[in-house]
Amino acid sequence: PKNSMAKVAELAKKAMNLGKDDPRRITHSLKVGVALSLVSLIYYYQPLYNSFGVSAMWAVMTVVVVFEFSVGATLSKGLNRGLATFLAGALGVGAHHLASLSGKTGEPIMLGFFVFLQATGSTFMRFFPQIKAKYDYGMLIFILTFALVSVSGFRQEEILEFAHKRLSTVVIGGSACLIVSIAVCPVWAGEDLHRHIALNMEKLANFLEGFGDKYLRESEDDASNRDESLFRGYKSVLGTKSNEESLANFASWEPRHGRFGFRHPWKQYLKIGASIRQCANRIEALDGYLTTKFHAPPQVQIRLKELCAEMSMEAARALRQLSSSHKAMIVPSSATPHLENSRAAVKALKSLLETASRKDATDLLAIVHAATVTSLLIEVVDCTDKIAESI
Amino acid sequence: PKNSMAKVAELAKKAMNLGKDDPRRITHSLKVGVALSLVSLIYYYQPLYNSFGVSAMWAVMTVVVVFEFSVGATLSKGLNRGLATFLAGALGVGAHHLASLSGKTGEPIMLGFFVFLQATGSTFMRFFPQIKAKYDYGMLIFILTFALVSVSGFRQEEILEFAHKRLSTVVIGGSACLIVSIAVCPVWAGEDLHRHIALNMEKLANFLEGFGDKYLRESEDDASNRDESLFRGYKSVLGTKSNEESLANFASWEPRHGRFGFRHPWKQYLKIGASIRQCANRIEALDGYLTTKFHAPPQVQIRLKELCAEMSMEAARALRQLSSSHKAMIVPSSATPHLENSRAAVKALKSLLETASRKDATDLLAIVHAATVTSLLIEVVDCTDKIAESI
Repeated sequence: PKNSMAKVAELAKKAMNLGKDDPRRITHSLKVGVALSLVSLIYYYQPLYNSFGVSAMWAVMTVVVVFEFSVGATLSKGLNRGLATFLAGALGVGAHHLASLSGKTGEPIMLGFFVFLQATGSTFMRFFPQIKAKYDYGMLIFILTFALVSVSGFRQEEILEFAHKRLSTVVIGGSACLIVSIAVCPVWAGEDLHRHIALNMEKLANFLEGFGDKYLRESEDDASNRDESLFRGYKSVLGTKSNEESLANFASWEPRHGRFGFRHPWKQYLKIGASIRQCANRIEALDGYLTTKFHAPPQVQIRLKELCAEMSMEAARALRQLSSSHKAMIVPSSATPHLENSRAAVKALKSLLETASRKDATDLLAIVHAATVTSLLIEVVDCTDKIAESI
Repeated sequence: PKNSMAKVAELAKKAMNLGKDDPRRITHSLKVGVALSLVSLIYYYQPLYNSFGVSAMWAVMTVVVVFEFSVGATLSKGLNRGLATFLAGALGVGAHHLASLSGKTGEPIMLGFFVFLQATGSTFMRFFPQIKAKYDYGMLIFILTFALVSVSGFRQEEILEFAHKRLSTVVIGGSACLIVSIAVCPVWAGEDLHRHIALNMEKLANFLEGFGDKYLRESEDDASNRDESLFRGYKSVLGTKSNEESLANFASWEPRHGRFGFRHPWKQYLKIGASIRQCANRIEALDGYLTTKFHAPPQVQIRLKELCAEMSMEAARALRQLSSSHKAMIVPSSATPHLENSRAAVKALKSLLETASRKDATDLLAIVHAATVTSLLIEVVDCTDKIAESI
């Protein structure tokens, strides 16, 4: 019992942390509970139950399946589901009508054929990348509703009523989701994406700052006691592609909210995200040189270090400026001087390398690499700058 | 009309290409059609319909929702759905029983409270990363079935029968999916992952070979007419993380098949995949130097080029050997000589750089970088080698 008690305590602690990390998780859970309770009122309230009957379960089902964390995702699923139910219901009624023309023995064969054809065709359509990205769930519901309506028609006379009930309960469930999702502490995918991009830029800036400060500025022996959290930061940037893509997809479904218009250029965010990831790749390569000591021939060592540190620091400052101006959605002019500074440092470094003769080449391995990566980095920052301007 | 005709033709062409790219897509679509037709037999065949009635639609639903492209994904969804339906059904019956104890007016309040509590709790549990990874769908169905069963109980007397019917139809639908999925041209996620990893290694090898061959060996003017397809190859490797993770997840659900045992070390594949991606990152950095001309001081130019080309070629050969031995699932001993060769080349290059004095530093920028990246690359290959050995 002690062991299991400890396990329960650990689980509770984990749950606490999950809630603390993002309190919206708790609100989201409560919202789902509220929406579900709301919809199950159909069962409890007699007049409503009279008109829907057992179909009320579609409303319950819709709420559970459609309610997603962000408004965009909920909207995308809800609209997909509603539209697909409508189209497939109409088509199903039509198919049933066609099949019933062929008599009592022909009907199941015709129906089976229709269902097979539609399922095969729609499943194949789900492989189209454009459809997969935005309408995958809709296609699923399309197959589902078509099969349900047309096949149920074989057993139930009131097929129109069946289709109609299914559609209206789905719409009720979907609306309940949307209303709760938007009215109670809405979570906008767009806002998430916006913040996510800004945060990623800051993570890169953190690394560069730490790199410039700890590794290059201070004495060489201090290089070992570097702050680990600095390095984890940029690593989380590397694998964010699919996350950003789904956020941008959901964001594109969202209506106008806050500072974001209806046709906010979410695709630009993906481009910025890609540049940031490219930058993070370079930083990862740079990170590999942290363990090697920084030493160059003594006559250029100090100057080299200075320049590298300057490049790193200025790039970090530029990124930080970009991040904050991105947050405020203004043209990032404040980053320009830092970019210019870092570019000047690159130039100085290049000329230093050109003029300095007689160097020990193995040491150059470390320093030249740092220089190239930083210059690459500046290119990336430059490109981010261009994109950020287009907001 | 001509315009729309052209559009239809274009669509047909796209569909053809989708099918040609992966014929399994066509088989998969047909399989879904077959499974759905099979399950809808419940409706047509009188004795079966007598025992299930309207609940037959759960079977149709299960097929549409559970049938996924690979066996692993289908199995994971099917088991999740079946188990969650069972647990939630039992719990729902219990909750209904508890609520019915509190009289006619107390019952809906109690039920509403239970549903709210369960929905909130389960939704929150879906945020646990471990649960999200493997049992997300199960949790969804858990909420769904609990709400359906407990709330329906308020209206239907035979709640046990309702829960039982739902469970048995879900099991029927799930079994139909599994049987069709495994019996007819099965698509194993594990096999896909296996091939995917081997292919990725080859893509890297392609780039390195092209790099060594075109950029370093031939005359400098030829550097411009490089083969574009070489470069796209490794780029597709960069964003594969989430794809690999889901494949490995599905693969872990799959039973023993072909050369893969039940407890095949799929997690190792993720490690290899991560090394490959890291390697691809380095290659991307290397790619940035393709546009700059390769020139070093004349006295070392030829030797440098030779060594770089050798490193690149040997690394490519090693990767190719690793890939083919990975495919055949044997210990990759054939790659070892190539790895040794490339490491020897790195050593030679380093000593060359050490001894050569009086070099033009800006030119070194390009060459030293190439050398460092390639040496990094060899480290990565080395690490891949280690992992591949553990298969």
